[in-house]
Amino acid sequence: MLKKILISFAALALPLFAQQATPASAQPTAIQNYISQHRPEIMQEFTQFLAIPNLAGDGPNIQRNANALAEMCRKRGLKTQLLQVGNAPPAVLAEAPNADPTKRTVTFYAHYDGQPVNKGDWTQDPWTPVLFSRGGSQTNPALDDPRTFIMARSASDDKAAIIGLLAAFDAMQATHTPLSVNLKFLFEGEEEAGSPHLAQILSQFSALLQSDLWVICDGPTNQNGQPQLVFGSRGVVTAQITAFGPNRPLHSGHYGNWAPNPVVELVHVISKLRTTGAEITIPHFYYPVRPLTPSEQAALKNVPDIDAQLKTEFGLAGTEGQGALAEQIMKPALNLDRIEGGGTGPNPANAIPSSATAYIDFRLVPNQTPAIVKEQLESYLRQMGHYLISKPPTPSERLQHSRVLQVVWGAGYPPQRTDIGSPVAQAFIQATKTVTGNELVLLPTLGGSTPAFEFEQQFKKPVIGLPIANYDNNQHAANENLRLKNLWDGIALFAGIYGTLGNYWK
Amino acid sequence: MLKKILISFAALALPLFAQQATPASAQPTAIQNYISQHRPEIMQEFTQFLAIPNLAGDGPNIQRNANALAEMCRKRGLKTQLLQVGNAPPAVLAEAPNADPTKRTVTFYAHYDGQPVNKGDWTQDPWTPVLFSRGGSQTNPALDDPRTFIMARSASDDKAAIIGLLAAFDAMQATHTPLSVNLKFLFEGEEEAGSPHLAQILSQFSALLQSDLWVICDGPTNQNGQPQLVFGSRGVVTAQITAFGPNRPLHSGHYGNWAPNPVVELVHVISKLRTTGAEITIPHFYYPVRPLTPSEQAALKNVPDIDAQLKTEFGLAGTEGQGALAEQIMKPALNLDRIEGGGTGPNPANAIPSSATAYIDFRLVPNQTPAIVKEQLESYLRQMGHYLISKPPTPSERLQHSRVLQVVWGAGYPPQRTDIGSPVAQAFIQATKTVTGNELVLLPTLGGSTPAFEFEQQFKKPVIGLPIANYDNNQHAANENLRLKNLWDGIALFAGIYGTLGNYWK
Repeated sequence: MLKKILISFAALALPLFAQQATPASAQPTAIQNYISQHRPEIMQEFTQFLAIPNLAGDGPNIQRNANALAEMCRKRGLKTQLLQVGNAPPAVLAEAPNADPTKRTVTFYAHYDGQPVNKGDWTQDPWTPVLFSRGGSQTNPALDDPRTFIMARSASDDKAAIIGLLAAFDAMQATHTPLSVNLKFLFEGEEEAGSPHLAQILSQFSALLQSDLWVICDGPTNQNGQPQLVFGSRGVVTAQITAFGPNRPLHSGHYGNWAPNPVVELVHVISKLRTTGAEITIPHFYYPVRPLTPSEQAALKNVPDIDAQLKTEFGLAGTEGQGALAEQIMKPALNLDRIEGGGTGPNPANAIPSSATAYIDFRLVPNQTPAIVKEQLESYLRQMGHYLISKPPTPSERLQHSRVLQVVWGAGYPPQRTDIGSPVAQAFIQATKTVTGNELVLLPTLGGSTPAFEFEQQFKKPVIGLPIANYDNNQHAANENLRLKNLWDGIALFAGIYGTLGNYWK
Repeated sequence: MLKKILISFAALALPLFAQQATPASAQPTAIQNYISQHRPEIMQEFTQFLAIPNLAGDGPNIQRNANALAEMCRKRGLKTQLLQVGNAPPAVLAEAPNADPTKRTVTFYAHYDGQPVNKGDWTQDPWTPVLFSRGGSQTNPALDDPRTFIMARSASDDKAAIIGLLAAFDAMQATHTPLSVNLKFLFEGEEEAGSPHLAQILSQFSALLQSDLWVICDGPTNQNGQPQLVFGSRGVVTAQITAFGPNRPLHSGHYGNWAPNPVVELVHVISKLRTTGAEITIPHFYYPVRPLTPSEQAALKNVPDIDAQLKTEFGLAGTEGQGALAEQIMKPALNLDRIEGGGTGPNPANAIPSSATAYIDFRLVPNQTPAIVKEQLESYLRQMGHYLISKPPTPSERLQHSRVLQVVWGAGYPPQRTDIGSPVAQAFIQATKTVTGNELVLLPTLGGSTPAFEFEQQFKKPVIGLPIANYDNNQHAANENLRLKNLWDGIALFAGIYGTLGNYWK
C-alpha cells in the first residue's frame, strides 16, 4: 500500500521523505479537482448541519445533531456509533473501514456543539445559515470566491472541521487515493460547555478509541492568512464571582453610602486579581508555570509578527502585555468575559443593586491545572476577608457574613503541549507541507483551549492541532462565520494528511 | 378669616400657638370622616391616573398625564394651566381660587413622571395598577386595611402625593374647613429624568409661581413607620463611564492577555473612585462639604436609630459607613447603579468584550454642586492617564489613544437644606403635629434627591419636604407600591397643613 502511494505521488515529482519543504502545488490535482467539482454538494450538507441548533445544554437539539452526524458518517461507509455517558450529549465515533494493522491509526477530533448565542446581537438567526460576501456579489456570492462567507453558529467553530474531514474522506475515496494511516473520527457534543464528560467518554470507551496520534481540528488558521499547525493549547477554567448587597434593590439616594453596594465590592475584588497590564496578582499564580523549552523558544522566533496588522484591524492603540501575540499566549491569562449588576435595558434606575457578577475565564499553560487555580483564587479571596459560598446566600448567611462571595466554577481542562521537535511532530509538518509548501505557521501553542490534555492524559499519545477556520470568524461571538475558501483549503489539507502522514512517520 | 379658623379649632380645645406638642387626635374629625367615606372615589381617580404610562421620555404619554392631571385640577375649581417650555413635559400649575392677600402662599410640589421600568422584573405590567395584601385577603383587599397596597409605577413616587394633595383640598372644601394659607400646586413631568427644564420653568413662569414656602411632597415616611418632615435633600448627578477594548469581541483564548480587556480597565477605574467603605477617593472630593450646623447636629440626635431594623429587613450583616443611616445621608455618596459589559443572557461567551460601562450616581450635600463634581471626576480620570471623550470613540481615536474613557453626564441638582431652627420650619413642625402628635421624625435631610435647590435658587424662599409614601415601596425598582394607609394618612396630613400652618407662622 505504501508503494502504491509512492507511485501515485511520484508522477508529481514529489520529494517524498525529503527534509526540505515541498512546493505548495504538491497535492495530487485529483483531490483539488474533486473539491472544485463538489462544492454545491458539500455546502448543502454543511448548511443542513448548521441549521440544527447546537447548544450543549439543549438536549433534544443536541441529540438531533448527533443523529444527523452519525447518519452523515454511516452513509459514507464509516463504522459509526454514539458514545453515550449518562445524559451528556453523545460523542460520535466513526472509523474508516478495512483498517490496515500495519499502519498507524490517527483519530481526528472536532466538536459539533457551539458557543451560547445572544440572538439580539446577531444580524440573523444563528441557526439559519446564509452566504454573504466581503467585497463581492451580495445577491449571489460564488462558492469559489475567496470573498464568500457563510454565517451561522458553529460555521467555523467547529462544524466546518467536521464537514472538511468527511469531505476529505469522500475525496480520497472518489479519487481512489490510498490512506497512509487508519482513520478514526471523534466528534464531541459539549466542548463549548467545557467538555465535562469527555474524560469519562475517553476512559469508558478507551478500547474503541486507541490510536497513535490525536489531531484536534478546532480553532483558526494564522492571522496572516496562512495555515498553521499548533502543538499545544492553553487550558481553561471558568468562574463566576457574585457579590451581594441588600436582598432587594434600594433607592440609591435614601440608602447610598449606608447599604453595601455589591458592584463596588465586586470591582474591588476583580481589581485585586489582575492589573490592567497582563499581570495576574493572585499570590503564587505563576509558580506552577514551567519555562519555555529550547524548541518552543526556537519555534516562537519563526512565528510571524502580526501585532501591527491585528492592532489596526481591532482598533487598538496598545496591547496588554509586553510581548507579541504569539509570546503572550505562551503565558496564562485571566479574562473578564462579562460583568453585570443592576439590570439591563435603557435608563438604569438609581438604585443599589442586590448583586453583581463577574464572569471570568482563566487560560492555563503547563504545568498549571484548574484544580491549582481554584485553590489559589479561593485562598486569596478568603485571605482578603470574604466568606465564600457556592450557592446564593441564605437569609441567615446574609445576616451573618458581611463580605459574602458566591464562586461558581465551570468545567475546564488543563493545558497541553506536544514537543515540536518530536518525530511525530516533524512528520506531521512534512505531511502538511505537501499541501501548503512553506506557507505554514508552526505555533507552539494555541491561545484558545481544546481538550488536548484529556487525550494525552488518557492515551499517553501525542496530540497535534490542525485548525482550518479563518481567524476573523467571530468565533464565540455574534455573527460567527466561515470563509468558504478556508473550507476548501481545509479539505485539501485533511486529504493531504490522510494520504501522506504515514509515509513520513517512521 | 383667621378668626374663623380659631373658632373652628377651638371646639376641639386645640392648644393653638403653643410650643408644646399637640395630641395625635388633634385633627378635626370632619376631615378624618371625609377620608373614611371617600376611599372608593379617591382610589378610582388614583387608579386611572396610574394607568397612564409616565416615562419622561415618552412624549405622547407624558402629555396624556399632563392633560389628565390638569383636568383633575380644573374639575375641583382650581385655576389650572400647563407651563410649557420647548418640548419638555409640561408642568401643571393649579391654584386654589379666592386667594387671600393677607395670608401667606404655599406651593406644594410633586411630580407625575416615574422612574424607568424593566418590565421583565415586574410581576405585572407597571401601568396596570393592582391591589394586593401583605398578610390579608388577596382576593378582596379592603381599602381601609393597613395591609393593603397598590402596585404600579409611581404608586408611591410620586403620584400618591398628587392624589393626596388634591383629595385633601376636596376634604377641606367638603367639610368647609378654612385654608390657613393660600394654596398652589406645581406638578412636574420630568423629575425622574433629572428635572432638566425645571429651572427654566421656574424662571420663565416666576410671576405665576411666587410663594412664601415650597413644600416638596416626594419620598418616604420614616422607616420606623412614623411620618417625617425633611429639611433638605441630597443633590444628585449621574455619570456613565465606558471603557473600550477591541472594536469587536475577541476570543478570550486566542487574544486573552494581549487584547486590552475593557472590563478590567473599568473595574480598576471604579475601584479608584471609592472604597468598599463609604469613602470617596476622588481627590479633594470632600473639600466643598460644609460641616453640620449645631441645629443639624441637635436634630440628628433625635432621629430614631433604625439601623438594626433595616439591616434585618434588607438582609445585611454590615453597612458601608461608620455612622447610622441618618448620619450617613448627611454625607455625599458615590453609588454604582449598574455595571455591564460582555452582553446579557445565560451562558456568557468566553470573549473579550468591546466595551464595558458603569452607571454612577453621586449624591451631594451642601456646598457641593454637580459642576464641581464633574470637574473633580474628569480631572482625576485624566490624571490617571485616561483620554476622555463624550461620544463613542472614532476609529482613529481608538488607534491613537490606549486608555479611552467615554464619560456621559446626566442632568442633576445641587443639594438643599433649610435651617431646621428657622421660624417657618418650627411653624411647619407645629402644624404637622396637630395631626401626628409627637409621632413625627424630623430629618435634617432626605437621602434622596428632590429639586428643592431649584426653588430656593429661583425664589430665595424656604423649602420643606413632607413625604407620605411607605419607605418599603420599591421606589425606583420593580414592583413599586404604596401602602394605602399611607395615602389616607397623607391626605389628613396635607389637610392639617392647609388648615393650620398659617396660624403658627408668625
